[in-house]
Amino acid sequence: MRIKCRKSTLSSGLAIVSKAVSTKTTSPILECVLLQATGGQVTLTANNLELGIETVIEATVLEEGKVALEAKLFTDIIRSLPDSEVDMETTSDIRVDIHCEKARFTIPCRNGDEFSLLPNIEKEKSIQISQLALRDVIRQTIFSISDNENARMMTGVSLEVMDNRLIVITLDGHRISRRKIDLRGDNPDVSVVVPGKTMQELSKIINGGNDDLVDIYFTDQHLQFEYDQTRVVSRLLEGEYFKIASMMSIGHSMKVKANKKELMAIIDRARLLIQETDKKPIIVSVKNDGNLYVRLDTNLGSMNEEMEIEKEGDEIIIGMNPKFLGDALRVIDDDEVEFYMSDSKNPLIIKNEKEDYVYIILPISINTDIYR
Amino acid sequence: MRIKCRKSTLSSGLAIVSKAVSTKTTSPILECVLLQATGGQVTLTANNLELGIETVIEATVLEEGKVALEAKLFTDIIRSLPDSEVDMETTSDIRVDIHCEKARFTIPCRNGDEFSLLPNIEKEKSIQISQLALRDVIRQTIFSISDNENARMMTGVSLEVMDNRLIVITLDGHRISRRKIDLRGDNPDVSVVVPGKTMQELSKIINGGNDDLVDIYFTDQHLQFEYDQTRVVSRLLEGEYFKIASMMSIGHSMKVKANKKELMAIIDRARLLIQETDKKPIIVSVKNDGNLYVRLDTNLGSMNEEMEIEKEGDEIIIGMNPKFLGDALRVIDDDEVEFYMSDSKNPLIIKNEKEDYVYIILPISINTDIYR
Repeated sequence: MRIKCRKSTLSSGLAIVSKAVSTKTTSPILECVLLQATGGQVTLTANNLELGIETVIEATVLEEGKVALEAKLFTDIIRSLPDSEVDMETTSDIRVDIHCEKARFTIPCRNGDEFSLLPNIEKEKSIQISQLALRDVIRQTIFSISDNENARMMTGVSLEVMDNRLIVITLDGHRISRRKIDLRGDNPDVSVVVPGKTMQELSKIINGGNDDLVDIYFTDQHLQFEYDQTRVVSRLLEGEYFKIASMMSIGHSMKVKANKKELMAIIDRARLLIQETDKKPIIVSVKNDGNLYVRLDTNLGSMNEEMEIEKEGDEIIIGMNPKFLGDALRVIDDDEVEFYMSDSKNPLIIKNEKEDYVYIILPISINTDIYR
Repeated sequence: MRIKCRKSTLSSGLAIVSKAVSTKTTSPILECVLLQATGGQVTLTANNLELGIETVIEATVLEEGKVALEAKLFTDIIRSLPDSEVDMETTSDIRVDIHCEKARFTIPCRNGDEFSLLPNIEKEKSIQISQLALRDVIRQTIFSISDNENARMMTGVSLEVMDNRLIVITLDGHRISRRKIDLRGDNPDVSVVVPGKTMQELSKIINGGNDDLVDIYFTDQHLQFEYDQTRVVSRLLEGEYFKIASMMSIGHSMKVKANKKELMAIIDRARLLIQETDKKPIIVSVKNDGNLYVRLDTNLGSMNEEMEIEKEGDEIIIGMNPKFLGDALRVIDDDEVEFYMSDSKNPLIIKNEKEDYVYIILPISINTDIYR
């Protein structure tokens, strides 16, 4: 194999595929990136068997071939080169020469045939969405997946297409996040659960705007994201996702409208008094005087603060994990947020009227009598 | 004690003194910051018994007094408050109320009498230097102190005033860094060794420019830096510093003039092939063809690169730790650097003609025959 290409082109391509390189593995080939030079182009591929990424870069192919290179070292070397033309050539079965201006590197390589290529994905069912919207929806839901591998379905992100809307759901047993996005045109109904890691890595490499589109293809076992010269293939999590319909239709006896920034600042202040191992809730109470009160007592100290809100319905006292409340508020782009509650035992729900977003947070049980 | 002051004023003051707060200690008082309210001002102090910092902030003192507060929590709380007036009051011997707009915190405190105040420093011997120059000279020397506590003098920075110049030296047994700064006026001759940690923390809080001055006071046991409303007091390291005069006067049989940026890029590339535990040197050779060659072979691969240089004297081959070479080049602000060498067994010296800076690096022994 011998190719020539711009350093910047190669470097950008490597930055994309490196998101699918295994870091902790006993199989060295999973730490590699594959270069395939055919026709007038070079395809870069990384594949950790759960997530695989392939991107095609512009290059001059002087000799066709393929070779696998240790991804981190290769990426670091290319990044370090001057912004000029890179000339790469396999000099034997186990060595590659990299040449750029006066710099010459020789590094070991592996036979490209050892490498597991990405599966071909059937393109029967697909939707199209803007890169910006996809990136946003990942950011707005990913924080409430679980990292407990024993609850494997909770480590995933549920993607459902229904009535020409994409519904994204994550949950971790204490809270549920749901976002809806309207899709253009006619879309097939599908329902899959994608590993959270896939969505996290995807959101790092999809950096287009509102007019840049990404195609998503669904099969029984895989999901493929395709945009520009890149395709990202992920295995799906097998199994049934959680039924959340009953949670979504929980009634409420009161509603609060609050300034988001002000409330977030109060919650962030309260969190200063909570140590990592501490599970102390903040006590949120909404009173007929038109104020929302937050207070907290921990080993570190105590705090209380109030803010004006708009309220409909009864007074309430509820115990909340301030991190969960903060996580949800942080990803809501509205200036004003609306909360729905009924009592200290039932969930707090943050949603907008159109229900583009719904965040449900279970309360922490408290003795409400002592806080009245 | 009761004081009122701007949140931003208090926060800036805490950011300064917190550099002298102990983080790993079994003595809780060392993790505290002391607030002393007297007359019309509040003094903040932190003191880890090696390094102490004191800064005076503007405040309204409603009731004089002093109190010690856990520095991290207190700093985090103040930082989290709205940019408004903070009202602080001790409500008992063990509690302080902090109030800002609608936010109220109550945190534990300690009796201010437990706290070790900074010593009063005799102001007999002093020099004055710009904050920018002091910050620069720390950055340009601090990297070559040792972190080996068994070689305690090597963990310090030697400050010497002689003939109205400040000479700053660090060394770690493999390399020596020396910088000289001309001082204005008539200055006393002094020679002290300051803990490296003091200099590191100092460079983080001194952020003035060329026209902002800092006074440095020398005593037998302490050093005091004084600027604006802040004084920084450090213990000195006791003992004799190393005599480096003989190293400074080493002869040379050849001289190389090279573009600094180009050479640094080559060295940074070579370092990619060196793993942490690896002590492989880069092989630097300067030939009569007017080129400097760098090459390296390690388990990860091999590299070689050349660059044009100006040379006076013989050809040379020398083994170098690329990190040491890179560290020195990185802090030299000139575009062109000059190296002086004699053979593969003697140090490489980087210095400018005026000897404002001298960096001496011991070579790594190599078998020069195999590289010819």
